[in-house]
Amino acid sequence: MRAVIMNSDGKVAVETVPDPQLPGPDGAVIKVDAAAICGSDLHFYDGDMPSVDGLSIGHEAVGTVVEVGPAVTGITVGDRVMVSCIAACGNCPGCRAGDPATCDHGSTIFGFGAGLGGAQAELLAVPVAQSTLMKLPDSIDDEAALLLTDNLVTGWTAARRGEVSPGQSVLVLGLGAVGLCAVRSALALGAARVFVYDPVAGRRARGAAFGGIAVGDDGADPVAAVLEATGGRGADVVIDAVATDRSLDSAFGAVRTGGTVSVVGVHDLNPYPLPILIGVYRSITLRMSMAAVQSSWREVVPLIAAGKLDTTGVFTHRMPLDQAPEAYELVAARTADCTKVVLTG
Amino acid sequence: MRAVIMNSDGKVAVETVPDPQLPGPDGAVIKVDAAAICGSDLHFYDGDMPSVDGLSIGHEAVGTVVEVGPAVTGITVGDRVMVSCIAACGNCPGCRAGDPATCDHGSTIFGFGAGLGGAQAELLAVPVAQSTLMKLPDSIDDEAALLLTDNLVTGWTAARRGEVSPGQSVLVLGLGAVGLCAVRSALALGAARVFVYDPVAGRRARGAAFGGIAVGDDGADPVAAVLEATGGRGADVVIDAVATDRSLDSAFGAVRTGGTVSVVGVHDLNPYPLPILIGVYRSITLRMSMAAVQSSWREVVPLIAAGKLDTTGVFTHRMPLDQAPEAYELVAARTADCTKVVLTG
Amino acid sequence: MRAVIMNSDGKVAVETVPDPQLPGPDGAVIKVDAAAICGSDLHFYDGDMPSVDGLSIGHEAVGTVVEVGPAVTGITVGDRVMVSCIAACGNCPGCRAGDPATCDHGSTIFGFGAGLGGAQAELLAVPVAQSTLMKLPDSIDDEAALLLTDNLVTGWTAARRGEVSPGQSVLVLGLGAVGLCAVRSALALGAARVFVYDPVAGRRARGAAFGGIAVGDDGADPVAAVLEATGGRGADVVIDAVATDRSLDSAFGAVRTGGTVSVVGVHDLNPYPLPILIGVYRSITLRMSMAAVQSSWREVVPLIAAGKLDTTGVFTHRMPLDQAPEAYELVAARTADCTKVVLTG
Amino acid sequence: MRAVIMNSDGKVAVETVPDPQLPGPDGAVIKVDAAAICGSDLHFYDGDMPSVDGLSIGHEAVGTVVEVGPAVTGITVGDRVMVSCIAACGNCPGCRAGDPATCDHGSTIFGFGAGLGGAQAELLAVPVAQSTLMKLPDSIDDEAALLLTDNLVTGWTAARRGEVSPGQSVLVLGLGAVGLCAVRSALALGAARVFVYDPVAGRRARGAAFGGIAVGDDGADPVAAVLEATGGRGADVVIDAVATDRSLDSAFGAVRTGGTVSVVGVHDLNPYPLPILIGVYRSITLRMSMAAVQSSWREVVPLIAAGKLDTTGVFTHRMPLDQAPEAYELVAARTADCTKVVLTG
Repeated sequence: MRAVIMNSDGKVAVETVPDPQLPGPDGAVIKVDAAAICGSDLHFYDGDMPSVDGLSIGHEAVGTVVEVGPAVTGITVGDRVMVSCIAACGNCPGCRAGDPATCDHGSTIFGFGAGLGGAQAELLAVPVAQSTLMKLPDSIDDEAALLLTDNLVTGWTAARRGEVSPGQSVLVLGLGAVGLCAVRSALALGAARVFVYDPVAGRRARGAAFGGIAVGDDGADPVAAVLEATGGRGADVVIDAVATDRSLDSAFGAVRTGGTVSVVGVHDLNPYPLPILIGVYRSITLRMSMAAVQSSWREVVPLIAAGKLDTTGVFTHRMPLDQAPEAYELVAARTADCTKVVLTG
Repeated sequence: MRAVIMNSDGKVAVETVPDPQLPGPDGAVIKVDAAAICGSDLHFYDGDMPSVDGLSIGHEAVGTVVEVGPAVTGITVGDRVMVSCIAACGNCPGCRAGDPATCDHGSTIFGFGAGLGGAQAELLAVPVAQSTLMKLPDSIDDEAALLLTDNLVTGWTAARRGEVSPGQSVLVLGLGAVGLCAVRSALALGAARVFVYDPVAGRRARGAAFGGIAVGDDGADPVAAVLEATGGRGADVVIDAVATDRSLDSAFGAVRTGGTVSVVGVHDLNPYPLPILIGVYRSITLRMSMAAVQSSWREVVPLIAAGKLDTTGVFTHRMPLDQAPEAYELVAARTADCTKVVLTG
Repeated sequence: MRAVIMNSDGKVAVETVPDPQLPGPDGAVIKVDAAAICGSDLHFYDGDMPSVDGLSIGHEAVGTVVEVGPAVTGITVGDRVMVSCIAACGNCPGCRAGDPATCDHGSTIFGFGAGLGGAQAELLAVPVAQSTLMKLPDSIDDEAALLLTDNLVTGWTAARRGEVSPGQSVLVLGLGAVGLCAVRSALALGAARVFVYDPVAGRRARGAAFGGIAVGDDGADPVAAVLEATGGRGADVVIDAVATDRSLDSAFGAVRTGGTVSVVGVHDLNPYPLPILIGVYRSITLRMSMAAVQSSWREVVPLIAAGKLDTTGVFTHRMPLDQAPEAYELVAARTADCTKVVLTG
Repeated sequence: MRAVIMNSDGKVAVETVPDPQLPGPDGAVIKVDAAAICGSDLHFYDGDMPSVDGLSIGHEAVGTVVEVGPAVTGITVGDRVMVSCIAACGNCPGCRAGDPATCDHGSTIFGFGAGLGGAQAELLAVPVAQSTLMKLPDSIDDEAALLLTDNLVTGWTAARRGEVSPGQSVLVLGLGAVGLCAVRSALALGAARVFVYDPVAGRRARGAAFGGIAVGDDGADPVAAVLEATGGRGADVVIDAVATDRSLDSAFGAVRTGGTVSVVGVHDLNPYPLPILIGVYRSITLRMSMAAVQSSWREVVPLIAAGKLDTTGVFTHRMPLDQAPEAYELVAARTADCTKVVLTG
């Protein structure tokens, strides 16, 4: 089959590789109908990671089941499915709670070189199919489903673990795909006002188009803007979807005393110099999270199916799989024009 | 001053009565700018209650502060305020949690003859002003504020205590003012689908216009309709805003195993023959609730101020205070045309 | 094998019946090491239920796995296990949350004639072994494990769903095995005071020995006693483990405004005449529940293993399986001497 | 009156200063019956803070009301009371929730030089008496009450905000007074096992005597010990009561994936180099907290009054106020012998 292959110098190529095999009796193989490029794929592309030569990349896929193991119930050949970007045991307390990243036996992301193939390929082998896959209702189209494999459930998790509750004010820092999904998630959870900030003006504009209130236009200080808009109190919840490496500084500046900072995404500034004294003195909660995929699916899928949560506008570009090199170049430029690319065919 | 006075034969009159006095150092007196008639006022009007001769009635008012006691802070003469329909001590755990109906020292409803005057009057004496009153922002108009004194916070409480959570399916039984507010509350809390039922077709239509999915049209069984729409599972939450005296039967029929039935409002069938064996076998929760006024204000006021929760369409009639007799007659007819009447002037 | 067989006239006999077969690839068969008689078994014994001729009875068993289906992981032949009294699909949201009674596909109790055999037998076929069975650590002895199959997790569920929280006052009505377990559960959850009542004096005494504060001695009114002890406020939570058919009257009398009544067990007075007006006016929550077996196991098993939750004193009699007729007679007498009987051999 | 006065060189003296005045109509003045020295007082004593010359120190006091403002209800002259170490407005959402450190209008600690006098004195002026003071029942003795002014409610808050739930495993780092109180708090909240660590062996022994399981004896690695005892999983909750400046390193090492690290107390290493990538990858929650005084009182006071939460063994020394210099010297030595000193007379 064809697959997108990453090399350690950040070059991407579409290569022919062996077809994947059924990963055990509880697994499945799917024909990928569409895959997407995620911001976290760029950590390989940018050359941050050493020695990824030959890595089969990608962790966001929807497709059609072409083979299932004998121990799988509820999923059959021909089913249209989406794939959780994280695979885990499916049976420990964390997995049963729908949060595979907290699996007692460890979790794995597709396309990260840790034993699971990449989703940007024609075929994908999926372990523990019963929990890693979800059969798609007709009301969920491929692009909505691709968001549900990672970015939307990450944004939802950020808002949910951030304890966004009705009537609250929220600030979202970073308006890539995850941040934009977090804006809609916070609104769906009843936030009264969602302030949005990204250093790129066009991204702030998109955040506003998604229902947010842009802060930081024309060089204004986004923290000061949030404080002013909240009467000096600060936002109840700040979701840090990595606007910049120092966006946690803004988060701690803009969150109200007793509030929550909810972080998703990969910060280059690691370790981060946490103002622990201020944190204690102001009773701040810091939630750091991977996507709680299945528990989010349970809440978000019915909302999308009922037309209550909009999923349009995140994908800005659609390209064939063979143009993966051009697609990566586009995404890596991090312009306001391109939020996210879907690869098909 | 003029006030609406109820007599035990259900006749209503606008009479001249003595002006109310400041009810202690922590109280206030307000000039009523607008008052509303609530379904529960009809329990007096319909003659269900004996000996209410001379009762000053009404418990929904917005107005302007004309006098405040010396111990009140945060409220001053001239402030535009709304009045919680329930007054209580303001300081016990229940009151501090914003749920005055659970006050350790007992709570009182205005205009029920239990020591507090009626809100359908020119002036109203308000005890414990600091918690019973809330200063209104300009973004909340009088009709929104009137809903916030009772019906909207009752509907909100029904949804909140019913534990409506994102993605869930909800059934609202009874589409008077409280039921309609419950529909919007459930949607604001993230319900994916809100089924609505009332025996009056026009009320079902209004429920659908408020965002609900009408069931029970053309004589169809609403319970069967909800079961079918949910694949036999039933609704996660049923809010019983008193469609009929037997609407709890429908609630228990339509709620899923493990779900919640949330009751607000006064049922004429009391005691109700509870199917306790089925309740236990199906692990049902039954929440019965008065409005948690202040805790709801904290969540709902910012949503309305931000334009996230619509309050229009509940009031169908506006009349001067002097026409209270005609207004009561209209409400008592319980037609689809009239949901709720505001009295001004 | 030998099994306890119930007849419709309430006669119990130990009979030889065919050995059970493996119930599908996800099932198991266990050799029963010990089984117990539950109060709910008496609903058959007392002749409340028609036509149970030949019913293989019992739903509380611990044993050793003698056969497992090929699709079962984590359980092997020779494992010492306890059996959830309720079996269900294991995979729907309710089952994943550890609450099999809320299974989307329906749940079944062993020994109730609904397809699952009785636990008071030499062998027991167990469907969906992975969730219905739990491997026992050495620190949990057989009698503790038997309580964990039903009565203790029922009492725990009553306290947990009753929202017992630290510092609260609780009243437990009914001091059979479930009620006694509820007393200890409430204390383990941080209740400051657990009042206990049963019409049988000896049972009240046992409740006090379990850490409760007996009310209603010498013919005193238990409701009045709780109100007095709580300064007129009432208990935060009342757990109704069926002291009498009218114990819900006492529950509504003794619970504080805004509090919770948590019901487990089978009331003969069905339907129960619920004081719905009082319930609404006082914002009461009524939780009705079957045991949330697996979610309770997750919390209770570590507490028992660590010596933090005592399980002794509930079983008052130990008898061989062949003496089941005598054992049932003893339990049915409902004396203070006999709380619960274990059958072995 | 006499008061303990701190100087910038860390010298402490008992000096005669003017009596405090009633701090407004909602305030009170109390005669201090007993005060205590807190670990945080040492930040002044150790000379960490510049220019504290003449600071009246101390924030833990119980006493008798000698004067109350006219706007205070529920507290009268002669009442035996304890004083929340934190004072705030009493009326904003945070204060109403019983968490004064999250007051919208800012909170102040007694004896920190920010407008409120020190508690280690003969008299203390208390603002907003209705929420800052709590009348003591006879069942709470002076030493229990002194713990309730700060250390015990801080430990309780650490456990509560750390979301300790029944059956969990907890690690407490740092076994000064707050850490010891956290051990008992975690157990009262249903923790199955509470591992305890402090670099001082005698403190570990005291932690074990309080119900904990000591780790790190004989130079063993406490993190490795917790991982081993939990089958490699880690503790569900780690409470960091500042064992060392790097105890957060141990916290992140010992907490399970998906678990919570709950920090109370002042770390000298500020900012702390937070492993943000690991935090996100492992979905860790970091709670930083000041004491939620009144919300904790509501839960803890009934537990102590009912004999369910032991408060003995934390105070190791009792000395007269005039020996404050010797008392500070003793506390500053941070030996295992001295956990906490009460000053009387």
